[in-house]
Amino acid sequence: MSAALTNGQDRRARFTAVFPKLEKELLDFVTAQGFPQEAISWFQRNLDYNAPGGKLNRGMSVVDSLEILRGGPLSEEEYFKSALLGWCVELLQAFFLVSDDIMDSSITRRGQPCWYRVEGIGMIAINDSFMLEGSIYHLLKSHFRKDSYYVDLLDLFHETTFQTELGQLIDLITAPEDHIDLNRFSLRKHQLIVIYKTAYYSFYLPVALAMHMAGIKDEAAFKHAQDILIPLGEYFQVQDDYLDCYGAPEFIGKIGTDILDNKCSWNVNVALANCSPEQRKVLDENYGRKDAACEAKVKEVFLAVDIPGKYAVYEQESYEKINGLINAIDETPGGLKRDVFRAFLAKIYKRTK
Amino acid sequence: MSAALTNGQDRRARFTAVFPKLEKELLDFVTAQGFPQEAISWFQRNLDYNAPGGKLNRGMSVVDSLEILRGGPLSEEEYFKSALLGWCVELLQAFFLVSDDIMDSSITRRGQPCWYRVEGIGMIAINDSFMLEGSIYHLLKSHFRKDSYYVDLLDLFHETTFQTELGQLIDLITAPEDHIDLNRFSLRKHQLIVIYKTAYYSFYLPVALAMHMAGIKDEAAFKHAQDILIPLGEYFQVQDDYLDCYGAPEFIGKIGTDILDNKCSWNVNVALANCSPEQRKVLDENYGRKDAACEAKVKEVFLAVDIPGKYAVYEQESYEKINGLINAIDETPGGLKRDVFRAFLAKIYKRTK
Repeated sequence: MSAALTNGQDRRARFTAVFPKLEKELLDFVTAQGFPQEAISWFQRNLDYNAPGGKLNRGMSVVDSLEILRGGPLSEEEYFKSALLGWCVELLQAFFLVSDDIMDSSITRRGQPCWYRVEGIGMIAINDSFMLEGSIYHLLKSHFRKDSYYVDLLDLFHETTFQTELGQLIDLITAPEDHIDLNRFSLRKHQLIVIYKTAYYSFYLPVALAMHMAGIKDEAAFKHAQDILIPLGEYFQVQDDYLDCYGAPEFIGKIGTDILDNKCSWNVNVALANCSPEQRKVLDENYGRKDAACEAKVKEVFLAVDIPGKYAVYEQESYEKINGLINAIDETPGGLKRDVFRAFLAKIYKRTK
Repeated sequence: MSAALTNGQDRRARFTAVFPKLEKELLDFVTAQGFPQEAISWFQRNLDYNAPGGKLNRGMSVVDSLEILRGGPLSEEEYFKSALLGWCVELLQAFFLVSDDIMDSSITRRGQPCWYRVEGIGMIAINDSFMLEGSIYHLLKSHFRKDSYYVDLLDLFHETTFQTELGQLIDLITAPEDHIDLNRFSLRKHQLIVIYKTAYYSFYLPVALAMHMAGIKDEAAFKHAQDILIPLGEYFQVQDDYLDCYGAPEFIGKIGTDILDNKCSWNVNVALANCSPEQRKVLDENYGRKDAACEAKVKEVFLAVDIPGKYAVYEQESYEKINGLINAIDETPGGLKRDVFRAFLAKIYKRTK
C-alpha cells in the first residue's frame, strides 16, 4: 500500500472518528429533554443511516482548506471544530439527499435502499430529513456561539440552503420524470441547476467555512473564492453528467441512467444545441423513455453530434479558465491561498470516476 | 358591527397587507439570480397558497406583544418589523403544515386541498416546504442583520424549529395511522407531543420574538415567559383535543376525526388512565378504526369515565395555575408585562371554537 493511500485512509479515519462525538451530543440533548427511548433510537438510526457513508469529500475539504489557509498543522481544537463544520456540510447534504430521493422516487442510495424505502420509515423520512438539517444549527450553537464569526456561519448555511433549494426547484420543474418535453431544456437552465443545486453547497460552502475559521473577514476574498469555486463546481457537475454516459461503470461505480430518467444533463443540452431537425426528432421520441433501445438511439445522436469531442474542448477550456482565476489570487498574509483551489482542481481535472 | 370587531378586522387587514411586500422581496431576489419565469411563478404560487389563509393568530401576536411591551403604539418601522417577524412565524407554520399533510396523508387544509394534492404539485411540495422555511432566514437577514439581537432571532428560530421537529417525530412514531396500539399512548407522551409540536412555536416563539425587539436581554425574563407560555400552549392543545370530540361543529368549523384517526389525544389518554379492564377492551377494539359505530363505542367509554367532568377540572386548574404564574411577574421598566400573557389567556379560557 502506498504512503499516499495510507495517508488518505488516516485522514478519512480521523474525520470519521469525529462523527460519533457529534451524534452523542445530539442524542444527549434529546435525552435531556425527557424524550422516550424509542424517539432517541429513531433519531440515532436516522443519523447513522444518512449522515456517514458517503465519500465525505465535501466534509473533509473544510479541514483540508483550513490547513492550507493556516499554512501548517491544526491544533486538536482547530481540527475538531473544522471537522465539525465538515460534518455540518455532510448533514446538509444528507438533508437534501433523503428528501430528494423521495421527490425523485429513487430506489437506492450509496448501495443501500433509500431511507424512505426502509421498512417502517416511509414518509416519516420527511421529518427525519428536517432533523438532519436541525442538527446543524444545534451543533453550530454548542461550539461556535462565542466565536466572532458565529453569525457568519449561520448566514452562510442559510444562504447555501436556500440556493440549493432553488436549484432543486428548477431541476424538478424542468425535468419531471413523468412529463418529457425537451423544449423545457436549455444550457442556461442546466447551468442554473448545477450551480444552485450542487456547486454552492459542494464547493463554495466548505471553503467559505474554512475561511471564516481562518479569520478572513474581507468580503472581496469571499467573492474571489466564489468566482473560482462556482465555475469549478459547474465543471465538476458537467463531468458527472458526461461520465454518466461515457464513464466506465467499473470506475464510476454505477450504470448511468440519465437518458432513461429524462435528466436535464449537459450531454442532452449540448446535443439539442447542435443537432439537425432529424436528430432532434430522434431525441424527442427517445429521450427519457425507460427503454434500452430508446437509450441506444439517443446515444447514437450523442456520438453523431460529437459529445465526446465537445466535452474534451469544454474540459480544456474550463481547466484553463479556472487555473487563470486561481493564478490571479493575490496571496497576502492571513488571506486566500492558491493551494486551496489547486487542491480541488487537481482532484477533479480529467477524473474518470 | 361592534367597534371591537372593526378593530379586529383592521388589525388583521394591516397585518395581512405586509405580506405582499415580503413576497415581493423574496421574488425579486429569485428574479435577480436570473431564474426563469416558471420558477419565480412556482415560488409565488407556493407562498400564496401556503403562507396566508390561516387564522394568523400566531403572527399577529408578535405585534400585539410588542405593543404591550412598549406600552404604546408602534412607529411605522416597528410595526413593519414586528409584522415581518409575525410572518416568519406564519412561514414556519406553513413549512410544518405543508410537510405534515404529506406525512399524515391529509386531504384538505384550511378548506382547500392540501398543497401536495394540488394538480401538478405532488412530492415537489417537499421542496416547496423547505423554501417556505428558507424564506424566513432571507427576510430576517434583509431586515435585522444590523440589529444587536439578530443572532438571538436566528438561535430562537433554530431552537423552535428543532423542538417542533422533535414533537412531530414522537407524534409520528407514537400514533401511526396504520398501526393501532394503545399501549404506546400515555399522558406523558401526550404532554411531550403537545409541548414540542405546538406550544413552543405557537406560544413561546411569538412572545420571545417581541421580547427581543423590545430590547429585553435578561435570560431570566425569557425563562419566565417560557414557564408561562408552555403550560398555556399545553392547555390550548388539550382544549383542541377536547373540542375535537365535544365542540359544536358549527363553532369549531370542522367535524372531529381524532378517534377515527388513531390520534394520541388528551381524551383517549385520560380514558386509558381511568378505565376498567372491560372499558379498556372496548377502546382497544374500537379506537382508530375508520368506522362510525366504533367511534360511537369509544365515545360511550369517554362519557362513562367522565371526560367532560375531568376536562372541566383540568381547565379550572390550568387557568388558576397560569394566572398565578402571570401574577408572579415582577414588572420592572423595560422588562416583562403581565398583560402580554393575560391577552393570551383571555383569548383561550373557556373558548368553544
